[in-house]
Amino acid sequence: MAADWRPTLYTCQGSRGLRATWAACEAGVDLDLQMLPFPPRFLKPDYLEINPLGTIPMLVDGDNRMTESCAIAHYLAVKSGASELVVKPDEQDYAAYLDFTYHADATITFPQTVYLRFAKFEKDKGFEEAGHAYAKWFGKRLIKVEQRLESREFLCADRFTVADICVGYALYLATNIGLGEYLDPRLVQYLATLKNRSGFKQAIALEKSFSKEAGIKPAIR
Amino acid sequence: MAADWRPTLYTCQGSRGLRATWAACEAGVDLDLQMLPFPPRFLKPDYLEINPLGTIPMLVDGDNRMTESCAIAHYLAVKSGASELVVKPDEQDYAAYLDFTYHADATITFPQTVYLRFAKFEKDKGFEEAGHAYAKWFGKRLIKVEQRLESREFLCADRFTVADICVGYALYLATNIGLGEYLDPRLVQYLATLKNRSGFKQAIALEKSFSKEAGIKPAIR
Repeated sequence: MAADWRPTLYTCQGSRGLRATWAACEAGVDLDLQMLPFPPRFLKPDYLEINPLGTIPMLVDGDNRMTESCAIAHYLAVKSGASELVVKPDEQDYAAYLDFTYHADATITFPQTVYLRFAKFEKDKGFEEAGHAYAKWFGKRLIKVEQRLESREFLCADRFTVADICVGYALYLATNIGLGEYLDPRLVQYLATLKNRSGFKQAIALEKSFSKEAGIKPAIR
Repeated sequence: MAADWRPTLYTCQGSRGLRATWAACEAGVDLDLQMLPFPPRFLKPDYLEINPLGTIPMLVDGDNRMTESCAIAHYLAVKSGASELVVKPDEQDYAAYLDFTYHADATITFPQTVYLRFAKFEKDKGFEEAGHAYAKWFGKRLIKVEQRLESREFLCADRFTVADICVGYALYLATNIGLGEYLDPRLVQYLATLKNRSGFKQAIALEKSFSKEAGIKPAIR
């Protein structure tokens, strides 16, 4: 990419946009980081003009608009040329890489958001048990990651990749919203390794300082 | 791939595994199609030995195991060499292609499954309204696809790609489970175009005949 490449990321501190911030830090991409209050569709309604979905994150790169955190993380790694972060079609673990980058949001993040909605944010609406049903559902779906990591340090190709960023965020979210009990000792250890990376620490610090500068409190704590 | 390439797909008729069957038909991949009753984790418990998640679909290709329908669809297209079905990093619509293949399941299929669970399958548990909340949520999230198709025949690169398979299935599911009202006229027209493809018809017929042969009723009707 051109040396002056600087895509814009709209996100909220600690949200799944962290996958994008983290991937950017690992890949050495300089982001124009636009931190928003959570949820932006209520607290920053003019954001809907930029992203009619009202969701975060959103990456703007020239004419391109992306709103899926795992897609953005993969995209930043590919476009930056940080090829070690991506598993290619001719590598043995290509199938696993694809599978885990999709699995991370569709199967082990979405159920956590159902839990958050019914058991936390809208606790007074009487669907708390429905929220807890999805927390349990989330816990059961962790078996795929657990089995994969039984004999591996990272999910794919014996190295840290975007698959670890995508799945790692789902585990990180769980520990932040009271679902940490579902992580077995191996997953706790795996998450600790990921959180100890300088790329992760840099992403957390970046989101924090930009949020502070904009006078915004963390989205999920 | 080798001429004798024949990956195995475990799936249920009409489930999101249709993305994989459809992609295989479009890409000319000969699948070993193993149709299961829905939900397999209750009606075919020995399936849990093959896939501990108990979810469908699952693709087995040599040592590889994949459980995410959009990842499988993309994988089959890439590995078969059906390059026109995939948008490459150097193409203009690469960002959109990635984004829609992830969006299709994480954002516009998962909420439909929450609706199905609480408003249909477990209607007697008292969370029907929670299910309907996610149906509404699904309807609102369609704006991204609606806007994209305002001036396009297909989602990406002026041609039919795996992004259309992934998103198309989410729309097809909606019409099958009583959420068709959320599709605006353009989406209805788009879905009709997709359903009219010989690849789609072939996939539907394949799943039907293999299910019938195995004495299995459709999963979702």
